[in-house]
Amino acid sequence: MPEEKKIRAAVMGATGYAGAELVRILCGHPGVELALLTSRQHAGAPFSRVYPAFAGICDMVCEAVDPEKAAAAADVVFTALPHKLPMEVVPALLEAGAKVVDLSADFRFQSAGAYESAYQPHSAKHLLSRAVYGLPELFGDKIAAADLVGNPGCYPTSVILPLAPFLARDLLGLDSVIIDSKSGVSGAGRGLSLGTLFCEVSDAFRAYKPASHRHQPEMEEVLSTVAKKPVSITFVPHLAPMNRGMLSTIYAKMQKPLADEEARQILADFYQDKPYVRVLPKGFLPRTSDVRNSNFCDISLAVDKPAGRLILFSAIDNLVKGAAGQAVQNMNLMSGLPETQGLTMLPGGV
Amino acid sequence: MPEEKKIRAAVMGATGYAGAELVRILCGHPGVELALLTSRQHAGAPFSRVYPAFAGICDMVCEAVDPEKAAAAADVVFTALPHKLPMEVVPALLEAGAKVVDLSADFRFQSAGAYESAYQPHSAKHLLSRAVYGLPELFGDKIAAADLVGNPGCYPTSVILPLAPFLARDLLGLDSVIIDSKSGVSGAGRGLSLGTLFCEVSDAFRAYKPASHRHQPEMEEVLSTVAKKPVSITFVPHLAPMNRGMLSTIYAKMQKPLADEEARQILADFYQDKPYVRVLPKGFLPRTSDVRNSNFCDISLAVDKPAGRLILFSAIDNLVKGAAGQAVQNMNLMSGLPETQGLTMLPGGV
Amino acid sequence: MPEEKKIRAAVMGATGYAGAELVRILCGHPGVELALLTSRQHAGAPFSRVYPAFAGICDMVCEAVDPEKAAAAADVVFTALPHKLPMEVVPALLEAGAKVVDLSADFRFQSAGAYESAYQPHSAKHLLSRAVYGLPELFGDKIAAADLVGNPGCYPTSVILPLAPFLARDLLGLDSVIIDSKSGVSGAGRGLSLGTLFCEVSDAFRAYKPASHRHQPEMEEVLSTVAKKPVSITFVPHLAPMNRGMLSTIYAKMQKPLADEEARQILADFYQDKPYVRVLPKGFLPRTSDVRNSNFCDISLAVDKPAGRLILFSAIDNLVKGAAGQAVQNMNLMSGLPETQGLTMLPGGV
Amino acid sequence: MPEEKKIRAAVMGATGYAGAELVRILCGHPGVELALLTSRQHAGAPFSRVYPAFAGICDMVCEAVDPEKAAAAADVVFTALPHKLPMEVVPALLEAGAKVVDLSADFRFQSAGAYESAYQPHSAKHLLSRAVYGLPELFGDKIAAADLVGNPGCYPTSVILPLAPFLARDLLGLDSVIIDSKSGVSGAGRGLSLGTLFCEVSDAFRAYKPASHRHQPEMEEVLSTVAKKPVSITFVPHLAPMNRGMLSTIYAKMQKPLADEEARQILADFYQDKPYVRVLPKGFLPRTSDVRNSNFCDISLAVDKPAGRLILFSAIDNLVKGAAGQAVQNMNLMSGLPETQGLTMLPGGV
Repeated sequence: MPEEKKIRAAVMGATGYAGAELVRILCGHPGVELALLTSRQHAGAPFSRVYPAFAGICDMVCEAVDPEKAAAAADVVFTALPHKLPMEVVPALLEAGAKVVDLSADFRFQSAGAYESAYQPHSAKHLLSRAVYGLPELFGDKIAAADLVGNPGCYPTSVILPLAPFLARDLLGLDSVIIDSKSGVSGAGRGLSLGTLFCEVSDAFRAYKPASHRHQPEMEEVLSTVAKKPVSITFVPHLAPMNRGMLSTIYAKMQKPLADEEARQILADFYQDKPYVRVLPKGFLPRTSDVRNSNFCDISLAVDKPAGRLILFSAIDNLVKGAAGQAVQNMNLMSGLPETQGLTMLPGGV
Repeated sequence: MPEEKKIRAAVMGATGYAGAELVRILCGHPGVELALLTSRQHAGAPFSRVYPAFAGICDMVCEAVDPEKAAAAADVVFTALPHKLPMEVVPALLEAGAKVVDLSADFRFQSAGAYESAYQPHSAKHLLSRAVYGLPELFGDKIAAADLVGNPGCYPTSVILPLAPFLARDLLGLDSVIIDSKSGVSGAGRGLSLGTLFCEVSDAFRAYKPASHRHQPEMEEVLSTVAKKPVSITFVPHLAPMNRGMLSTIYAKMQKPLADEEARQILADFYQDKPYVRVLPKGFLPRTSDVRNSNFCDISLAVDKPAGRLILFSAIDNLVKGAAGQAVQNMNLMSGLPETQGLTMLPGGV
Repeated sequence: MPEEKKIRAAVMGATGYAGAELVRILCGHPGVELALLTSRQHAGAPFSRVYPAFAGICDMVCEAVDPEKAAAAADVVFTALPHKLPMEVVPALLEAGAKVVDLSADFRFQSAGAYESAYQPHSAKHLLSRAVYGLPELFGDKIAAADLVGNPGCYPTSVILPLAPFLARDLLGLDSVIIDSKSGVSGAGRGLSLGTLFCEVSDAFRAYKPASHRHQPEMEEVLSTVAKKPVSITFVPHLAPMNRGMLSTIYAKMQKPLADEEARQILADFYQDKPYVRVLPKGFLPRTSDVRNSNFCDISLAVDKPAGRLILFSAIDNLVKGAAGQAVQNMNLMSGLPETQGLTMLPGGV
Repeated sequence: MPEEKKIRAAVMGATGYAGAELVRILCGHPGVELALLTSRQHAGAPFSRVYPAFAGICDMVCEAVDPEKAAAAADVVFTALPHKLPMEVVPALLEAGAKVVDLSADFRFQSAGAYESAYQPHSAKHLLSRAVYGLPELFGDKIAAADLVGNPGCYPTSVILPLAPFLARDLLGLDSVIIDSKSGVSGAGRGLSLGTLFCEVSDAFRAYKPASHRHQPEMEEVLSTVAKKPVSITFVPHLAPMNRGMLSTIYAKMQKPLADEEARQILADFYQDKPYVRVLPKGFLPRTSDVRNSNFCDISLAVDKPAGRLILFSAIDNLVKGAAGQAVQNMNLMSGLPETQGLTMLPGGV
């Protein structure tokens, strides 16, 4: 591919875990030229000094956050910044003609009220209707036409993908859905906090924010869109002693009994052309290690016949399909590149 | 305490993880003299050669399994053997006058049919009604009078303790209970299997045997006893990358709305005199590391008011309160010793 | 033991990892009454709110640091404070009649110059000759008579114990000693730092401060005392992805060839009456898990005959024999209690 | 690249950890067509059933071991079999015209005596002089001309790369070299053994086979070749609680004092054109996580001036640069492909 045709990409917030994963993926993307990195904390430092793994691979110097400069330098800007910062810079980025994939929650909601009740006042509400929810398996066409994508949270990605095929066909009790998710520690970010110290996590499995996590309203909004009826859920996230990976176990009442094969076929049909969803055969359950470092979402299920419940399982790498990989998948669609370009990292390995 | 008054204890199956934990606890028990260890795999070897941690602490030689010899040597025999072996040796042990705490499933069921549908034909059915289910917080009086105790499984312990106070008062929908449990790897035992190799567990969070684990009928039988009505559950166990610890997250419909404090008070009242159940204050959720190496079961909760659900959390050390510690607690009760004697190991530490 | 005879103990700096381990051990010590806890960061909070594992076990409220109050409340004060703070409070503690076990480096050196070149100016130099180095296996008699003990660093403990028997008999090349140590993460403390985040430690084995760690002059001073000649070493510490445990691998030229049994006998003779040093039989090498949670130091060796080198291995729990356990062992000696009282925690378990 | 030009590759022993890593790399190699997989244990099963991570990526069915068939199907055959099996199949593979990269020890030695004293009688000694030691940074030209390459062990790779530049220039004492290596658990393979169970490895740092590991004579032979004089070493491997990664810490006497920058320059000069050796700048030490999943070997150093010692540090991924990645690097050279083709996996990520 001739050099001049490459998409120029900028990553704002490159030195957090999601930002660094974006850099990792973009460095290996044949259709992209990495044009600019910003970091509030490490402005002035080469990226490879912050992440020595990148020595000789990405020695670009991180700059201070400057939306004008980013928009001038790049065709696509990834904003991997904490909630609230993106709504401050995204208007300027769009104004200057850049396409934006935002990895925060700021542009994931259609409803400003839902956002504001979970986060804070929104200063760029006028852009919410312009933003598209960046789950390519469900909203690929809209994403391809968008210039602003709100990249989904890791929990919502792991939850919406297994549930959507059943909710779209009205097969589940809309108030029966219970989600028990388990996340690796990188989801909590690179900021310093007692709760993510090695000694506080190792051997220390625990739940947090039960029925009160901010990803819950995001899930409910999107699941309701899919079901075309209001869906309300019970959601409890947990922290597991591992770096990467997210497993969601989802329980729901079936509206009518489904056999295992039937349910599996519904998933297979729904995702038949989708390169990053793998529906596992009967007898196999997803493991986080089987999707590690890849953009895959592995899904399987069990039918609890006596209880009339469907149990769904999904596994993703929270930093890839749950963040940076999905963001690049969105960029590909927005830029007319093949959906899988630069996203061929193979999963796993021990 | 004079030497001659000590309880003589034997551990059959001393070199598995639960057996070794029994040895560890009994070595520190001031009222017990360790009289005999057996091991099918390591007969003839000093215990401390199998577990070098015990060098100088327990150098006793492991013997072959011989119930007559065990009954002659010991007042109380712990059978920490795989399912099916205990039903073969326990009759002889009782016959010879020993008290027995069995850590397998063989004597946990009142109903032979329930046992046989989950395990195999039972060759000592006549003892099922004589056996008492060894959950001291619920059945302490019966245990004190028993000579045969079926020590509960680790999952049932972690599930029954938080649920019992609510089911006993008919506060939950009897077919609404969903249990999502996460266990450390030691629960799978010391046998060689691909699934418990370090490289297959690390980074590899996963569910197993969804809605089909053999602890489910055990839970249902005991929960129904507590509720005095049939309780049916959905149960999914998971394997977490850590040695010890079990966290259960339990979801149930409330028959009528309960406030957080109300629900917490119900737990506190129920367990007010129980030394090993700690009901956590509001704002605290159990962590497996906070009970590690101890006999505690930590319990907390959240009320999902919009959904009308109570969410219960419990943490135990699967080898202690989930196996060996509870077995010693039972032995104490059966032998007239203080319930907490020898079980003062403090939890946690980083 | 009658209540009034108990030693009253205070822990200053109770909420760091070493301080909390002290609390853990002292809570189970039959000859001690925990009289006072201080914490700069958590003054006013119950200890069990900082460490929920201690709910119902130690709910004492942490106080601000106040040496007068500590000395009034306690017979023995443990100062588990960062370097530099102890030299400010210890003079007042001694003045008021308390015995002191200091877990920092402030009172480990005989030579003020050695201390000052590794740390900072010393404001209580006059106490250095009064302080005794708190390695009971070597300096037990002096410790018993001391009112101020400088508790050894974790690395020095793991290094001096295996080397001392050979250096005391002039069997090793004095400039040939190379020490390669590996430590669990708790040794780095509970302070917030990027390097101890779970995601930065997991899978990330690494060395740090090669030939420049501050424990090196401490080791050289004590080893030289033992050898009665100057000993100089090369020391490289490493960080291993585990909470607790320290393994030191030590290489030295033998002055004359020693057979394996001979070398092992030298260790066995030297430590024959020492309850916390275990010399392993041939064929066994120490594992950190075999001493976890206990006060043991396990030692073994290999002879590299062609190279003329002795290779020594030692394992300790860095928070117990490497910090809090050893401090309590020192307190026992200083207070006339049996050396092992309250230190009967059994090691390991999986 | 036209399909017909691709190198056809076979992996014999595809379901062990090194074999599976070969499959992973070869699946992403643009110049290779995976032609055949063999597995003794899983013959008849799709590779993706043995490694579910590969579902949809490599569903090829594993076949029984058959050298004729392999040679017919493939231009290059990787033998990732246990020691002793390769010497039985490699003669037939070569006879049939295939090029061979053997990942066992069978063709790593020039001296049959050295091999036989460490392993077993060699049944294909006549091929030893034909075989080239597959360390491309040192023997690239010979590898390019070879049809049989003995792929180095993981420990030797991590040790020879940092030492070679200094030994080649006679800068180190030839009998002064001490190597303290730490390996992740995957190096022990996928076979079932007590020592690699999760519960036996976690928290259990330990040494094994001190001064008696079979990689020692391999290192000594190659280091002596490099130094053009006999080099004898002391080598102690350790097992660390992590899946992947190897860190070697190497101590040697300097023949004359070298400054840090001088020593670093020697490394930089030696490896200036080598794409997979990264010499770190002063102030940086290698971490296993910084090379994870990549073919890099990161090297750094410290000078212990008072002791006159050079301390070298190297980190590799034991399954990539220590096994499968290096094997593919060798294949590239042997097949006239660019050395880095298919080996562009980026390291690390948290």
